[in-house]
Amino acid sequence: MYQSEYLKHFTEQVFTAIGCSQEEATLAATVLISADLRGVDSHGIARLAGYVRLYDNGRLNPAPQIKVVYETPSTAVVDGDRGLGLVVAPKAMEVAMEKADKVGSGWVSVRNSNHFGIAGYHAMLALEKDMIGWTMTNAAPLVVPTFSLDKLLGTNPIAVAVPAMQEPPFVADFASTAVAYGKFEILQRKGLPAPIGWAQDAEGNPTTDSNAVKSGGGLLPLGTDREHGSHKGYGLGAIVDIFSGVLSGANFGPWVPPFATAGFMTAGQGVGLGTGHFVGAMRVDGFRPADEFKTDMDKWIRAFRGARAVEGKQVIIPGDPERELEAIRSVEGIGLLEPVVRSLSELGKRFGIPFEEQL
Amino acid sequence: MYQSEYLKHFTEQVFTAIGCSQEEATLAATVLISADLRGVDSHGIARLAGYVRLYDNGRLNPAPQIKVVYETPSTAVVDGDRGLGLVVAPKAMEVAMEKADKVGSGWVSVRNSNHFGIAGYHAMLALEKDMIGWTMTNAAPLVVPTFSLDKLLGTNPIAVAVPAMQEPPFVADFASTAVAYGKFEILQRKGLPAPIGWAQDAEGNPTTDSNAVKSGGGLLPLGTDREHGSHKGYGLGAIVDIFSGVLSGANFGPWVPPFATAGFMTAGQGVGLGTGHFVGAMRVDGFRPADEFKTDMDKWIRAFRGARAVEGKQVIIPGDPERELEAIRSVEGIGLLEPVVRSLSELGKRFGIPFEEQL
Repeated sequence: MYQSEYLKHFTEQVFTAIGCSQEEATLAATVLISADLRGVDSHGIARLAGYVRLYDNGRLNPAPQIKVVYETPSTAVVDGDRGLGLVVAPKAMEVAMEKADKVGSGWVSVRNSNHFGIAGYHAMLALEKDMIGWTMTNAAPLVVPTFSLDKLLGTNPIAVAVPAMQEPPFVADFASTAVAYGKFEILQRKGLPAPIGWAQDAEGNPTTDSNAVKSGGGLLPLGTDREHGSHKGYGLGAIVDIFSGVLSGANFGPWVPPFATAGFMTAGQGVGLGTGHFVGAMRVDGFRPADEFKTDMDKWIRAFRGARAVEGKQVIIPGDPERELEAIRSVEGIGLLEPVVRSLSELGKRFGIPFEEQL
Repeated sequence: MYQSEYLKHFTEQVFTAIGCSQEEATLAATVLISADLRGVDSHGIARLAGYVRLYDNGRLNPAPQIKVVYETPSTAVVDGDRGLGLVVAPKAMEVAMEKADKVGSGWVSVRNSNHFGIAGYHAMLALEKDMIGWTMTNAAPLVVPTFSLDKLLGTNPIAVAVPAMQEPPFVADFASTAVAYGKFEILQRKGLPAPIGWAQDAEGNPTTDSNAVKSGGGLLPLGTDREHGSHKGYGLGAIVDIFSGVLSGANFGPWVPPFATAGFMTAGQGVGLGTGHFVGAMRVDGFRPADEFKTDMDKWIRAFRGARAVEGKQVIIPGDPERELEAIRSVEGIGLLEPVVRSLSELGKRFGIPFEEQL
């Protein structure tokens, strides 16, 4: 087990080693390790080597000039200057929150960025200001629209964070697909098949092959097939792509470049700049007095948490499992898989930063 | 077959007969019949008798004072004064679009309303101004969150309309459930079972009983089960509910009152005012020059429409089927089921407005 502070400090040092400022390295490390703390292991320190590879490939600018290139009082486009999405997204959220402070809400579409880590982190930045946070990002194409044989959308997640009064906040953070690609990587490592409804094969048939996406198949949208609403998952992923990519002037659809670790995908010819995000903040008291709203959110949360449940299960509020895991992992530490430890040791050797293996 | 103008005129007369102004009756009829034209028959003239029953039950104010009760430059709460949702929602969209005109975007949460017809109609109002339109509404509880035995959410739809240049607009309009409740009503009429994955029974088990929702069961969220992402559909429905109900001070969750026709549901004790909606508009040129954006939307639409498809199928752009049906039904007319014709004849007799039966 590794203490989160240890992993954060290591990550920080790697980011400064490739040329990030101390401030941005700290921010990026905080975002990255928050994924490990919250149980979204696929988006945490496991990706650190990938970000370094992005840098090696000339796609990552460690000292970006992140700036607003277009704006109105409540909207803006931010250009990330090929910076770490881990840094670009929180800075874009700052712009959105400043606008919300002044005119009630702020909505920022971001171009020229890279993978931004877990969507929920950025949305949650709004909570301490009694704002609702909204975050989305497009991603490299792994997903087939309904009836398509071509992969045209990423897993395109949405995160929405809503403050409550005495209850912990509502934090929904989910991909617009049946499952995240990370679930396939776990099955691949174990040599196990996937449930029907997660992916299709190269001919568009249902498949249990956990390697299907690598061999011409594709991830299925939330809903899995037409009869169960896959066109709705496709519509949702499309909305994320349009708001993140088309509205900002980033790449969109089949042209979104792959994250560095995704070796089996080839980068498309670009139609815009880098990866796109969309972030927003709304002041709760742009609608109602904040205390009234948050008291009603408590009522909402208690009604749902108190629902009668299927035997042996309970009704969960979005954000509950991640928050509970964060409480545990903050104390007990974070377990890392052997390949992740190896990749961190290699980074440590390359940059002269000792990484203590604990397996 | 009935010409849409004939049905619209009849609807208008019914609404004026219960006390609506001519202007509002025309608007309400236009919204209602647009559902029939676009193929969303369950939300069209089939519900006219239901709106009249709302009036008979004292829940509908035919002459509402619809007004902004709270606002910032980019946000507002509109109180619908128990008016027809068919009228309240377009007026709230007007407020959102005025705000977008001035500060880039406008977001309006609506309380004290009723069923607003098809979500897509209201979102599409933004298109002619080169804005992106966003519409959501909560609804009476028919849907079980993941692992819940209690119905806590409505089918809570989302509609997003995005303008393009030469291509027709992108119009996604979908419930946050595996299927809309109307699909069950069709199966009930025909005495047919439902596919697994649409509903659960009173014990939370998968069921093919098309009457399950009436006998203690519930509609399943988009994703159908935990393994295929039902917690994401639940999260989406929850976001719609919070934005529409909690943010406005309307009813939310299990407390949203039933639409008049849903006789098998009992009205909850209220926690707010009426039904809630959430509508928004963003000026495309709040982000990029509108022509650049719309040209890229054409590129997006063509990439998706041109994708390789499963044999005998094609990849559809959200909004395509409804637009194609509207073109056909505008010319050939609209077919009505016998029970709908009967209900319209009865309304005609009651109000002294002849309805010509054509079966």
